[in-house]
Amino acid sequence: MRDFSQDISALALNTATLGHNLDGHGAGWSPEQIIDACAARGYGGIVFWRREIGDRAAEIGERVRAAGMQVVGLCRTPYLTGSQAGSEDEVKASIDMAAGLGAPVLTIVTGGTQPGTKGLADSQKRLAERVAGVADYAAAREVQLALEPLNPMFGGNRTCIMTVRDALRVCDMAGAANVGIAVDVYHVWWDTTLAESLKDARGRILGYHLCDWLEETRDMLLDRGMMGDGVADLRGLRAAVEGAGYDGPCEVEIFSARDWWLRPPDEVLDTIVARFRSVC
Amino acid sequence: MRDFSQDISALALNTATLGHNLDGHGAGWSPEQIIDACAARGYGGIVFWRREIGDRAAEIGERVRAAGMQVVGLCRTPYLTGSQAGSEDEVKASIDMAAGLGAPVLTIVTGGTQPGTKGLADSQKRLAERVAGVADYAAAREVQLALEPLNPMFGGNRTCIMTVRDALRVCDMAGAANVGIAVDVYHVWWDTTLAESLKDARGRILGYHLCDWLEETRDMLLDRGMMGDGVADLRGLRAAVEGAGYDGPCEVEIFSARDWWLRPPDEVLDTIVARFRSVC
Repeated sequence: MRDFSQDISALALNTATLGHNLDGHGAGWSPEQIIDACAARGYGGIVFWRREIGDRAAEIGERVRAAGMQVVGLCRTPYLTGSQAGSEDEVKASIDMAAGLGAPVLTIVTGGTQPGTKGLADSQKRLAERVAGVADYAAAREVQLALEPLNPMFGGNRTCIMTVRDALRVCDMAGAANVGIAVDVYHVWWDTTLAESLKDARGRILGYHLCDWLEETRDMLLDRGMMGDGVADLRGLRAAVEGAGYDGPCEVEIFSARDWWLRPPDEVLDTIVARFRSVC
Repeated sequence: MRDFSQDISALALNTATLGHNLDGHGAGWSPEQIIDACAARGYGGIVFWRREIGDRAAEIGERVRAAGMQVVGLCRTPYLTGSQAGSEDEVKASIDMAAGLGAPVLTIVTGGTQPGTKGLADSQKRLAERVAGVADYAAAREVQLALEPLNPMFGGNRTCIMTVRDALRVCDMAGAANVGIAVDVYHVWWDTTLAESLKDARGRILGYHLCDWLEETRDMLLDRGMMGDGVADLRGLRAAVEGAGYDGPCEVEIFSARDWWLRPPDEVLDTIVARFRSVC
């Protein structure tokens, strides 16, 4: 395993950690403020959300690189399945934005179960079709697509893939070289088959997301913990991911309406660095 | 698969479906009212919660059998792991209550992760030790212990087993003939490896719990759906359970503070019968 105690170049900030994924949360820092604050602390990269970018993708991407960091990824496509699925044009627009930023990875939160179906099989099949349908478009723009399995509590309206194994099955069905998976501590920490499932993921892990699972999780969506404050075995999880060949960025993504989003961003960013060195 | 369209003798009511597991919910029917209402509709059995029984276990058990039904089970032991774990005396008292009722199965919701530990391995080991420690006591009273895996969203403070595979592993570690598992639609509907995992469960499935997973689940604990109103593949799930040899009661357990607990119990009980015949 990599030693993060002395080297934080793999550390990336997902801006959702500062409340940037939802209206009315966080301190409202601009992309420029975030870039400068991360660069000053030695972060290796940043992951943005579409809502922050607008028509400034190229400008923001250049600004990140000028500060000595990478744009690690973009969150995310519209849903691809379920009653709230986006159109193909909307999906392609998100790919264009990732390309404009110079983000090598675009995350996919799949969307829920297909209307009128039961269980997950039909929805996963539809998901694979939709991913396959835009994979070439993304490849031509040098964007990889990362299917992110979500904790099963998000079944129904947010996801139709609940485990790494589910995500890899959909990758296999999609059959495109630029489609892989994202592994998020919040979503997979409980999966006692994770290391086994990841054996089939070699070369297909496109992202690793850090946070923690609080013993008393008070809100399923917006009460994630800072690394070290919860019950996830962070070292064990990273060992499984790196054991499957992953050596890329580790992206901190903490949705925390009751705690971290209420704190000054400087404090949040400093805490992340300390925890990244000590417990991740 | 069994045909429930003409035969509802396998149908059991878990009284939580009438709000009986939480103070201040439901219509407040007595055990006697529930027994009479279920018997009148042809239910085969009832599952009670400890809080309803008090010191009337033998009396209520006899009343159920006199009405031509079975006491199918009792919910549940105190937690066995985590920061809120109960004492051995408290666990034995719940076994005594099940025996007094004549309930063949006592459900175990395990409790959360052991204080000071990360991940699930230590907690599952502790769970197996605690189960093994009371298994003989339960066997002497003709009570079987059913480990119920919970949806991973309940990790941290409520469970340390998230899947049928987890539960079977703990059964193996406990190594007692009267320890098995309960399979609940709400907790397992999303698990695409369920049928595969259940192949190892033959002879160890002690209960099958029915409800549905609503597409828009608004509260993780108290917004379960009536069978047919959600996205779970109920027929497929029962096929997997029966394929592993289960031919026992199917227990309807719907925590629903916003919907079914607000309705008259007669309407709830009638709806269950209709849905049991048509969609389960």
